Amino acid sequence: MAVVARLVSGGLGDSPAVPGTPVLTLETMNPAVRRVEYAVRGPIVARALQLEKELKEGVTKPFSEVIKANIGDAHAMGQTPITFLRQVAALCLCPELMADSSIPSDARDRARRVLGSCGGQSIGSYSASPGLEVVREDVARYIERRDGIPARAQDIFLSTGASDAIVSVLKLLVSGSGRSRTGVLIPIPQYPLYSAALTELDAHQLSYFLNEEQGWALDVAELQRAVTEGRKHCRPRVLCIINPGNPTGQVQSRECIEDVIKFAYEENLFLMADEVYQDNVYAEGSEFHAFKKVLMQMGPPYSESVELASFHSISKGYMGECGLRGGYMEVVNMNPAVKDQLAKLVSVRLCPPVLGQAVLDVVVDPPQPGDPSYERFQAEKTAVLSALAKKAQLTQEIFNKTPGIHCNPVQGAMYSFPRIDLPPRAVAAAQEQGQAPDMFFCMRLLEETGICVVPGSGFGQREGTYHFRMTILPPTEKLQILLEKLSSFYTKFVREFS
Amino acid sequence: MAVVARLVSGGLGDSPAVPGTPVLTLETMNPAVRRVEYAVRGPIVARALQLEKELKEGVTKPFSEVIKANIGDAHAMGQTPITFLRQVAALCLCPELMADSSIPSDARDRARRVLGSCGGQSIGSYSASPGLEVVREDVARYIERRDGIPARAQDIFLSTGASDAIVSVLKLLVSGSGRSRTGVLIPIPQYPLYSAALTELDAHQLSYFLNEEQGWALDVAELQRAVTEGRKHCRPRVLCIINPGNPTGQVQSRECIEDVIKFAYEENLFLMADEVYQDNVYAEGSEFHAFKKVLMQMGPPYSESVELASFHSISKGYMGECGLRGGYMEVVNMNPAVKDQLAKLVSVRLCPPVLGQAVLDVVVDPPQPGDPSYERFQAEKTAVLSALAKKAQLTQEIFNKTPGIHCNPVQGAMYSFPRIDLPPRAVAAAQEQGQAPDMFFCMRLLEETGICVVPGSGFGQREGTYHFRMTILPPTEKLQILLEKLSSFYTKFVREFS
Repeated sequence: MAVVARLVSGGLGDSPAVPGTPVLTLETMNPAVRRVEYAVRGPIVARALQLEKELKEGVTKPFSEVIKANIGDAHAMGQTPITFLRQVAALCLCPELMADSSIPSDARDRARRVLGSCGGQSIGSYSASPGLEVVREDVARYIERRDGIPARAQDIFLSTGASDAIVSVLKLLVSGSGRSRTGVLIPIPQYPLYSAALTELDAHQLSYFLNEEQGWALDVAELQRAVTEGRKHCRPRVLCIINPGNPTGQVQSRECIEDVIKFAYEENLFLMADEVYQDNVYAEGSEFHAFKKVLMQMGPPYSESVELASFHSISKGYMGECGLRGGYMEVVNMNPAVKDQLAKLVSVRLCPPVLGQAVLDVVVDPPQPGDPSYERFQAEKTAVLSALAKKAQLTQEIFNKTPGIHCNPVQGAMYSFPRIDLPPRAVAAAQEQGQAPDMFFCMRLLEETGICVVPGSGFGQREGTYHFRMTILPPTEKLQILLEKLSSFYTKFVREFS
Repeated sequence: MAVVARLVSGGLGDSPAVPGTPVLTLETMNPAVRRVEYAVRGPIVARALQLEKELKEGVTKPFSEVIKANIGDAHAMGQTPITFLRQVAALCLCPELMADSSIPSDARDRARRVLGSCGGQSIGSYSASPGLEVVREDVARYIERRDGIPARAQDIFLSTGASDAIVSVLKLLVSGSGRSRTGVLIPIPQYPLYSAALTELDAHQLSYFLNEEQGWALDVAELQRAVTEGRKHCRPRVLCIINPGNPTGQVQSRECIEDVIKFAYEENLFLMADEVYQDNVYAEGSEFHAFKKVLMQMGPPYSESVELASFHSISKGYMGECGLRGGYMEVVNMNPAVKDQLAKLVSVRLCPPVLGQAVLDVVVDPPQPGDPSYERFQAEKTAVLSALAKKAQLTQEIFNKTPGIHCNPVQGAMYSFPRIDLPPRAVAAAQEQGQAPDMFFCMRLLEETGICVVPGSGFGQREGTYHFRMTILPPTEKLQILLEKLSSFYTKFVREFS
């Protein structure tokens, strides 16, 4: 058979069928996928998992526990789920538990409302591809309360976490080749989903640097530099903003957001606003301003023409329901025909997890004063957020007490991203091993203390500077010990290489 | 600002920044995404939803209910969820319900086991990207019991339904351009996820036709024709098989699977086996044979070199948990370095929904004789599967009684895919409206009866033949009425256009 094929193929020399030849190798696989990097779950996490396994098997280590401070995974760090939210979810799955007297009536009502909009009243049915109608409506009302600006369910697309929605929008925007290839502006440091998606989609990444000296502020002059430079190589069409910042923790001022919107208008850029940390704002004087709100308040011509997609998630905030994979995006000023294309694109994956949709519904429409679950819900929510605020403060204090570690205020989100001075001899030692210097530091930290953080090189940073990202999520007492351990390891490390 | 950018850009004439110009339009969007088609949720479903809305608003129609027989959505069609599975899921979400005396002890034990492997014992934590270790282990044991062949957890990747895993593997395999672009063989008729993914990934679709006259059998001579033809335009590297067939409902014989494996070996093709309907086999004499099992039983050289990925899901079978989005794939003979790349690729989306993983765990490791939930679980499972078997039979009988409708036996899966003779005047009328003739038929059917089925043109079919896909999922009595309604509509339609 193979012989016939080769003859008929007209002698295409480069694809002979030699039975038994491997089809899929590093050399033959999709080169774009091969180039993808994703530091948050990269080699350092693989090593952390391995160390955890070794500990379990009884191998002696200089530590008794691996602490995975590499990822914003609240429950894994001991944060307790919000009771009301879980009650609703459990009832959606197992309506016969409605008879359980320990479940408050508002949880029952909510579960009934969600199930009422599911096919066959089952959370196991597919939803419409953009999500359950009632949830999209509730999201729209949430946005209206948040912004004081109208919102429409038809502009809401529910998603499998925010990552899924972000990639969908990037997919729509990527086109062209050579100098007309889509260029996408992303902050440096960034959350590496962006660079990974751009690599996979073969779009052109245009980096704009956040200003570390100014508390990771976004500077429009730097955006201008990046676009101007970018126009030499591609067609800049998209500007991604992460606010509150990941990994950098800054919260953008209203003025800054206005400037960014004006810039997007002037430069014809589609705005993607990653606002998954909108509930995570801690610093005094900091306040979350949604891009949608600012855009609409600015009025014409901006409010009528600047195209925007904003992303939210159930994985962060006070709920931290990462594992349930829920989220939404709101699109603003999107061309209606393109919105139809977006609807078509998401329909190929059928629908986002319906349970994640149900939980999102509670997040955007929580119990109100007078509801049976209100007090408990409020107490749990406040406890999580005020603990996070304390931990943000604690992190910055302990790091900044250590000579050589420089940590900007953690105004929001869930991470610190301190800069560390590394001695030239450490840099040389890293280079000898073919490692980025901060990867070298983080690996040593992991091996000696069991603390897993992600090197700054995984997020991007100015050349010659070194950082790491660490979550502020561990319980306060544990976090304090962790920070002190990390600081003294750093001091020892610097001494060793001085 | 824009002026500066244009000057510095060296006069790149095709990308002037004119403030307020829309960025994302049908003309500027990703052309590959624009080309994507997905019939299962296409225009006919959009119209069905609209009709449903109109009915709700009190508009008078010749029917009182829209019946969405377009998609394999069991619960939406009234199938009852499996109790044990939902109990475990509810406990995973709300462990305080363990105190509820109505929950059997084996459900509690199972929930504890799953939670024990979650970070912080919460289903709200991210899992490892390939899934929870205990679930991957349980999947491997399930495959071993099914096939009598060893399976390893390290070859199992849990997923967000099967679609997600199928697209991930296709992403790995797509590379090259022009004549060295990856060609992917897919059956015609196919499940349109395949054509949609290939369009989006810009891979070359190579169609092989299933033999309708032989009950939709897969014929290796036809595979050979498709590969030989394909080699003129691209590099065929992948062969996709759907067994049991969707939309065609055939179950492949062991001999056929052996032939396909030999063919893949000879022609250097990576095998993708979509086996999501492995529990849905009804016809006497039909039996599901996993590609993995047959491959391993064939021995060397096949068992050592043919690369295979097999896909399964919690959305189908007897459980029908579409909304929870769970599934897995097993990779066989995959190059270890490529497997690492696959692990990296899936890590960018963090993890599949953890609740879907928990439910998958129950599916692959159901209650055993002697367990408190065994009897109920077995009774519920058997009830669903035997009803489906009856409905498969009923469908074929009623359709084949109608002159002009030709329905192959529904040996497995959840659909019938009857061929319908359409009078030339109907074909002409459709063409006048710029519609595929079977789309024209299905739209008329929907408008007049409220029955929503998907035209065969959405799945692919031999030129000049017309089909539709309809699920066998509605409750038996309702299905019978539906089939009779559809048959008489067809007869009336033919009369109208004769």
